Amino acid sequence: MIIMDTGATQEQIDRVIAEIKGHGLRADISRGEFRTVIGIVGDERKVDFAHLEALPGVKEVLSIEVPYKLISREYSKFIDGDKKHRVVKVGNVSIGGDEPVFIAGPCAVESKEQLFRIAEEAKQAGAHILRGGVFKPRSSVHSFQGLGAGGGEEALEWMREAGKKFDMPVVTEVRGEAQVDIVAQYVDILQIGARNMYNQDLLIKAARKGKPILFKRNFGAGIEEFLSFAEYIAAEGNRDIILCERGIIPIGKGRSYTRYTLDLAAVPAIQKETYLPVIVDPSHATGRRDLVFSMSCAAVAAGANGLMVEVHYNPEEALVDGQQSITPDALKDVIRACREIRKQVHGGKG
Amino acid sequence: MIIMDTGATQEQIDRVIAEIKGHGLRADISRGEFRTVIGIVGDERKVDFAHLEALPGVKEVLSIEVPYKLISREYSKFIDGDKKHRVVKVGNVSIGGDEPVFIAGPCAVESKEQLFRIAEEAKQAGAHILRGGVFKPRSSVHSFQGLGAGGGEEALEWMREAGKKFDMPVVTEVRGEAQVDIVAQYVDILQIGARNMYNQDLLIKAARKGKPILFKRNFGAGIEEFLSFAEYIAAEGNRDIILCERGIIPIGKGRSYTRYTLDLAAVPAIQKETYLPVIVDPSHATGRRDLVFSMSCAAVAAGANGLMVEVHYNPEEALVDGQQSITPDALKDVIRACREIRKQVHGGKG
Amino acid sequence: MIIMDTGATQEQIDRVIAEIKGHGLRADISRGEFRTVIGIVGDERKVDFAHLEALPGVKEVLSIEVPYKLISREYSKFIDGDKKHRVVKVGNVSIGGDEPVFIAGPCAVESKEQLFRIAEEAKQAGAHILRGGVFKPRSSVHSFQGLGAGGGEEALEWMREAGKKFDMPVVTEVRGEAQVDIVAQYVDILQIGARNMYNQDLLIKAARKGKPILFKRNFGAGIEEFLSFAEYIAAEGNRDIILCERGIIPIGKGRSYTRYTLDLAAVPAIQKETYLPVIVDPSHATGRRDLVFSMSCAAVAAGANGLMVEVHYNPEEALVDGQQSITPDALKDVIRACREIRKQVHGGKG
Amino acid sequence: MIIMDTGATQEQIDRVIAEIKGHGLRADISRGEFRTVIGIVGDERKVDFAHLEALPGVKEVLSIEVPYKLISREYSKFIDGDKKHRVVKVGNVSIGGDEPVFIAGPCAVESKEQLFRIAEEAKQAGAHILRGGVFKPRSSVHSFQGLGAGGGEEALEWMREAGKKFDMPVVTEVRGEAQVDIVAQYVDILQIGARNMYNQDLLIKAARKGKPILFKRNFGAGIEEFLSFAEYIAAEGNRDIILCERGIIPIGKGRSYTRYTLDLAAVPAIQKETYLPVIVDPSHATGRRDLVFSMSCAAVAAGANGLMVEVHYNPEEALVDGQQSITPDALKDVIRACREIRKQVHGGKG
Repeated sequence: MIIMDTGATQEQIDRVIAEIKGHGLRADISRGEFRTVIGIVGDERKVDFAHLEALPGVKEVLSIEVPYKLISREYSKFIDGDKKHRVVKVGNVSIGGDEPVFIAGPCAVESKEQLFRIAEEAKQAGAHILRGGVFKPRSSVHSFQGLGAGGGEEALEWMREAGKKFDMPVVTEVRGEAQVDIVAQYVDILQIGARNMYNQDLLIKAARKGKPILFKRNFGAGIEEFLSFAEYIAAEGNRDIILCERGIIPIGKGRSYTRYTLDLAAVPAIQKETYLPVIVDPSHATGRRDLVFSMSCAAVAAGANGLMVEVHYNPEEALVDGQQSITPDALKDVIRACREIRKQVHGGKG
Repeated sequence: MIIMDTGATQEQIDRVIAEIKGHGLRADISRGEFRTVIGIVGDERKVDFAHLEALPGVKEVLSIEVPYKLISREYSKFIDGDKKHRVVKVGNVSIGGDEPVFIAGPCAVESKEQLFRIAEEAKQAGAHILRGGVFKPRSSVHSFQGLGAGGGEEALEWMREAGKKFDMPVVTEVRGEAQVDIVAQYVDILQIGARNMYNQDLLIKAARKGKPILFKRNFGAGIEEFLSFAEYIAAEGNRDIILCERGIIPIGKGRSYTRYTLDLAAVPAIQKETYLPVIVDPSHATGRRDLVFSMSCAAVAAGANGLMVEVHYNPEEALVDGQQSITPDALKDVIRACREIRKQVHGGKG
Repeated sequence: MIIMDTGATQEQIDRVIAEIKGHGLRADISRGEFRTVIGIVGDERKVDFAHLEALPGVKEVLSIEVPYKLISREYSKFIDGDKKHRVVKVGNVSIGGDEPVFIAGPCAVESKEQLFRIAEEAKQAGAHILRGGVFKPRSSVHSFQGLGAGGGEEALEWMREAGKKFDMPVVTEVRGEAQVDIVAQYVDILQIGARNMYNQDLLIKAARKGKPILFKRNFGAGIEEFLSFAEYIAAEGNRDIILCERGIIPIGKGRSYTRYTLDLAAVPAIQKETYLPVIVDPSHATGRRDLVFSMSCAAVAAGANGLMVEVHYNPEEALVDGQQSITPDALKDVIRACREIRKQVHGGKG
Repeated sequence: MIIMDTGATQEQIDRVIAEIKGHGLRADISRGEFRTVIGIVGDERKVDFAHLEALPGVKEVLSIEVPYKLISREYSKFIDGDKKHRVVKVGNVSIGGDEPVFIAGPCAVESKEQLFRIAEEAKQAGAHILRGGVFKPRSSVHSFQGLGAGGGEEALEWMREAGKKFDMPVVTEVRGEAQVDIVAQYVDILQIGARNMYNQDLLIKAARKGKPILFKRNFGAGIEEFLSFAEYIAAEGNRDIILCERGIIPIGKGRSYTRYTLDLAAVPAIQKETYLPVIVDPSHATGRRDLVFSMSCAAVAAGANGLMVEVHYNPEEALVDGQQSITPDALKDVIRACREIRKQVHGGKG
């Protein structure tokens, strides 16, 4: 990571970039308020740091130990200053600011009517962003694969319309590379699901669309791996990354009382490593409607910048994951409690 | 589980008990406000339920599917009614009531001065119960094993004195069967540590002392196993059990950012299965002082009935686990935030 | 699963297929030696089985409980009869037959010279199939990504040439959907890596190439999930699937002595569920050269149909995973011991 | 670790011991063929190594990094020389020698007849040591707790008699501290079960009996923890420790196809750290009779020094764990195959 002088010229910057490229590496250029910072993408051990530091216009060269350099707090403070979190803006919603953000909607889009009714009721309950699955990752080829199975364009069109009608940015998952282009045409945020966390080709392709990425932790991934793969997105010049904790593989014998183990300590732990905002998905993590309220409160108390909650007006009839969806009424209760909790923890020393 | 008529005579009760014993099983007798309930300890498939139901004074015979019958909500409602949680009383502290309870103190008792100073400062910060380790379970025979290694009686005496002086019930761990008798003479609550969760001989011996048991979940145990072993305590007629979630084995490659994975969804999940109070130990779970505030808030938001927090006036100098101890000042902040959060979640639908 | 009469006409078969499609489902047609079997891809609860069974030419309609119907032993015995395993043929190598098959080669192709030298020495040591990574899945964007990063065609060409020269079928990994077409042009077996096990879009695209698929278990996946995703391949009409156990996430605190936990009991457990051949990758599983011999022997003793082993003439200099590569000499020793072990277990009752 | 000169006098040895004790530590004295080695039990950072090295009769002072010093290969080579494994002798059986050792018997002793019949048939099948559970650790207080529940002395007496009659050393589990004295009177090897691996008080009490300890790895324990707790036994001066791998907690969603995950790579990994013999229990690990043959072969192929297998003439009728017991006939097949496999791997480079 090369920090340039405040008055460094474009020529001086170009020279540094040329040096980096000369080693077969890529350069990540960030122009902050006062200075330009150049990150190295690739194996920086190939680079002669002393030589770089001696170039004109270079103020300092720093080596960052962790594999998630570009999204580390150390790096970002030169770009965005000492903010608590990077604020990812989507429409008029800010993720990473003072208020927790609520993303809500059906697990799977089933029909235009279903989507619009849930969007309306979620909006009334206080939700900011609309979610809806079109391309569903499923454990069995014999299960309903989402409306995306038949192309998905119609369902994506509904998402866009619903977003406009109810004034909410919309997010949906891109499950495979072939869907990136079309999904990016319709929605505001591209979601990478937990099963695709390690799918670096998909990450790169999605990142290049320039839209914010909602990036979910894989259920078998440690924090270091999670952040190292978020780095694939940042290395494409896209820092609008919203990290999402959604539960890890449960441990222990006997029947499992929750679908996954929600790792809430990961929220503050990640926030100490990176300035990217971190949200929590209590629906997939628990797989139980009756635990969503408790885990939503706990997530915000742990410092989460927002929640992603599955909502359905009639959970019993949902085609996918109905057992973990809550009603719009219950969502209202969640949002009220979380806002109050946020105020209490905000003054704390955490 | 045999529910007797409200007017069942002692003779009728004795007859049921005799029948149960006749099958080589044990009977657990609970006298509630209105009626007596008799539980069966052992393999109830040996018992002829139809025959039992026909005995005089018997109102109903119910079979409970889960292996944790005696502490199940189904069973307990006949004993304590439809309370939200069993209230475990220790001195004038109630665990399981409306307010979260705070247990605080040093990981290991190091000296009388250390213990008294921490006790005083924890009390001032708002703690209700004093903890302090005398017999320390350690991963290495080459590490400090606690003052209990030399007998421990002196350190236990300090615990009792500190409890009296600062008007706090005291709790310490019994690490092995040989310590049960002496520890029970000095402290108000016997703690069974995570590593001993499966130690049924220790559970039985400790339970028989009749004092409340603080029972920690093993880091590799599922919820069903945890409750099935709590049942060993209840089967000795001791229902004053405080369950404690303290983190499970972390998953994922790369360095671990927290010592264990705090499984907060286990709190409400357990509370739906049993009416026993559930507390959380954020210190051992995270192993990081800088995460204790967040995880304490999250635990109470998840519905925990209390917290057990390691406190030291000088964490850097602590002989054991200093990196996870917070100062009394930080404890004050934790308690304030948790109390406010409790109010917010209490009205919720969770 | 619909089993047709031995003399069922094409018309009768078509009628059954039409019925299935009428429910919005897909039909999988397998023509065995004596009869045709039609599988249902999708949610078969929509289908009226009694009605299907009454159609002309239908002998029997069976429902298979597991989500991996098409690759289950129950289904396959109607197609391939009661064979111990499906034999996947690649060139003149048979995987799933009486002899264990050895796949060997470098973790990453580094140069033509490196590849050819390793291919030659592996062949001499007794290996049947040549492996070599071109598109490397890596945990860090800052690490060497394989020669595929620059397009990969040249390296794939070397693989094809080496295969021809040393008379070995070749296998390489397709890491993303965009690589499927080009990789399929050059190699004999397409490998889906552990990180892509859940990537259903990639599975489908690769399966459609009609070439054998070497399918690795994800490190966080249970056996049921593994087989359910193999079913995505089979549902495309491609049953030439070679399953590969390569280790799961290690459990337990403290430093890890092996990179993953090799789950060898999965080998016979999977072989009882499906007739697909199962091989083992001891190199990635252990991450330790000094354990490859032991774990290779153990894998074959457990019943594995083959091994995939990383080989390098100079492991210390390998660009990727050198610490787990063995020399061609050591490979010879592995192959000799494994062949002898195979003979001993073959007569056993396992 | 202090290595004395070959001609060191008792006085010189005593002086070193006195120095160690002067720091509040314990000394572990091992008299090898040529020289005496003194280990330090406790926190050796308190000791001035330079001062020790200058004492008369001291040849060298070495610091061992791992927490399992006394059982490390580094330490043991000064005591027993460069043997492949420590040979633990019980009666005329040697564990850790050239031949794999087979321990077999019922999961739980049910009656004298049952025990004697199984002992006889296991002996005929080739087993060397008789196992039988008297004090059973059980997940539910409502399950059969073994004949030990009623005192156990009679069942222990049968064990001793059966051992004598069929000329086999016998092993049984001590589940709690209170059973150590009585069990040690009757059996040749004391078993510490997986659930008690962390029970340091029990380990110490059992170690002091001076009999060999069969020590099982906990299902949630890493290798470092396992060896660190074995060190508690060695620190009591008892090095006759037989380590046993019996499976760790399975990972992954969906139903579990094996009860635990048998970690066979742990066998050679542990054998590289310590010279203690390592055996494998395929019965508890898999929980499936139909996998015992495969996993037995795999264990011996991995280098295990022996097996512990549950045997019952009528597995369906066994009171405990019948689904994982094999018949004496099947045991014969296991032993034959394992002996052959052992020959094949013995010449290998592993």
